[in-house]
Amino acid sequence: MAKKAVLIVSGGMDSATMSYLYKNDGYDLILVGFNYGQRHVKELESLYKVGEALGAEVRVVDLTNLTKALHGSSLTSDEVAVPDGHYTEGSMKKTVVPNRNAIMISIAAGIAVAENADVVATGVHSGDHFIYPDCRPDFIRSIAAAVQFGNEGFGNPNLELQAPFLMKTKANIATIGGDLGVDYSLTWSCYKGGEKHCGRCGTCVERIEAFIDGGVKDPTEYADGIEFALAEIERKK
Amino acid sequence: MAKKAVLIVSGGMDSATMSYLYKNDGYDLILVGFNYGQRHVKELESLYKVGEALGAEVRVVDLTNLTKALHGSSLTSDEVAVPDGHYTEGSMKKTVVPNRNAIMISIAAGIAVAENADVVATGVHSGDHFIYPDCRPDFIRSIAAAVQFGNEGFGNPNLELQAPFLMKTKANIATIGGDLGVDYSLTWSCYKGGEKHCGRCGTCVERIEAFIDGGVKDPTEYADGIEFALAEIERKK
Repeated sequence: MAKKAVLIVSGGMDSATMSYLYKNDGYDLILVGFNYGQRHVKELESLYKVGEALGAEVRVVDLTNLTKALHGSSLTSDEVAVPDGHYTEGSMKKTVVPNRNAIMISIAAGIAVAENADVVATGVHSGDHFIYPDCRPDFIRSIAAAVQFGNEGFGNPNLELQAPFLMKTKANIATIGGDLGVDYSLTWSCYKGGEKHCGRCGTCVERIEAFIDGGVKDPTEYADGIEFALAEIERKK
Repeated sequence: MAKKAVLIVSGGMDSATMSYLYKNDGYDLILVGFNYGQRHVKELESLYKVGEALGAEVRVVDLTNLTKALHGSSLTSDEVAVPDGHYTEGSMKKTVVPNRNAIMISIAAGIAVAENADVVATGVHSGDHFIYPDCRPDFIRSIAAAVQFGNEGFGNPNLELQAPFLMKTKANIATIGGDLGVDYSLTWSCYKGGEKHCGRCGTCVERIEAFIDGGVKDPTEYADGIEFALAEIERKK
């Protein structure tokens, strides 16, 4: 019987690459997306496209009610504008749903137990360590222990939380995806959720930079081109 | 400014006692309940009554969509009968939503961060250790570390996960509640969710036993009296 992996996915580059990675390693995949009322529902459409490309089961968990209980962030509230350009500590904090990775990992781990899966995995990477504490190794190590202790005697006894990109940069991920043949035209990064990627918001700039630094052709059409992003990347160096 | 505590509550004895405990220690309370499609919505009504008695804010997070993603258990599916009598390993497993405490703790911790609270707390106790891995000290220790590491730089820097009854029995909790003057007539335990407590299901038997062993007057009316429960308790000894 094939091994089974429950993957936390967003429809973006990182989780698409992770999906191709586990597929390539012979896992049957359940891709779990979360709709927490974020603006970029485009991400969820992308997630279904990635699932279809890989023959994977897709489940989207609706947490819209939850974010009401948690209070607003710029991902969920129309009152707060999405900041342009690179993330700074201040602008990045606005996009945070408190304790988001713990919530998503705990739910995905519950699905993994119910499905007797071997692996539950998250696509967090080192580029997020500076701002997001719930992407750092200390957090991942603690919650991995909680997944193991919290489910002893239930599900697959070997169930393990994995974070294959924990110490990789986004450029590393793009390179890995290039080698795996990831179809990045299926993926979505832009926080503005327009018809095309804007090319100006923090995630668009990160995406453009990852393709350049990773040495992978970028199939994305950007509404405003990539000049703004290139200037931002240059300015940062 | 008063300290603030976000408490995971069910409407049952343990979390009602915990609510009185933190109130008595001078905390402002946010009581967070979860509706994961369980049968005993009576518990949620009880939760609002406890909140009202203590002047606490109550928030109920609707996770009905989530349990669809997780698959059935006897708490959520009408196909599976609720077993009578004491929990055995087999009958207790049927009532488990996989990784439930991790999910509830992660969500409550998110609320605690958003609210700048000092404490997030769960009412797990030692009587649940045998069957439920997510009520055991190893799990609580790991998820407490995850709460701390995962929110560094956000919310209250002193935010801490507490489990005041982790090493207490349900009888100990009843005794504590008796001293605090908890109005147990507001609370609900029965898994069958009828008009009155049935007096026969696993949680009713546990409840009756806790009042007896804790030396506290039981204000509950049981539909079938307590003879069945007393025989069960005797049989177990």
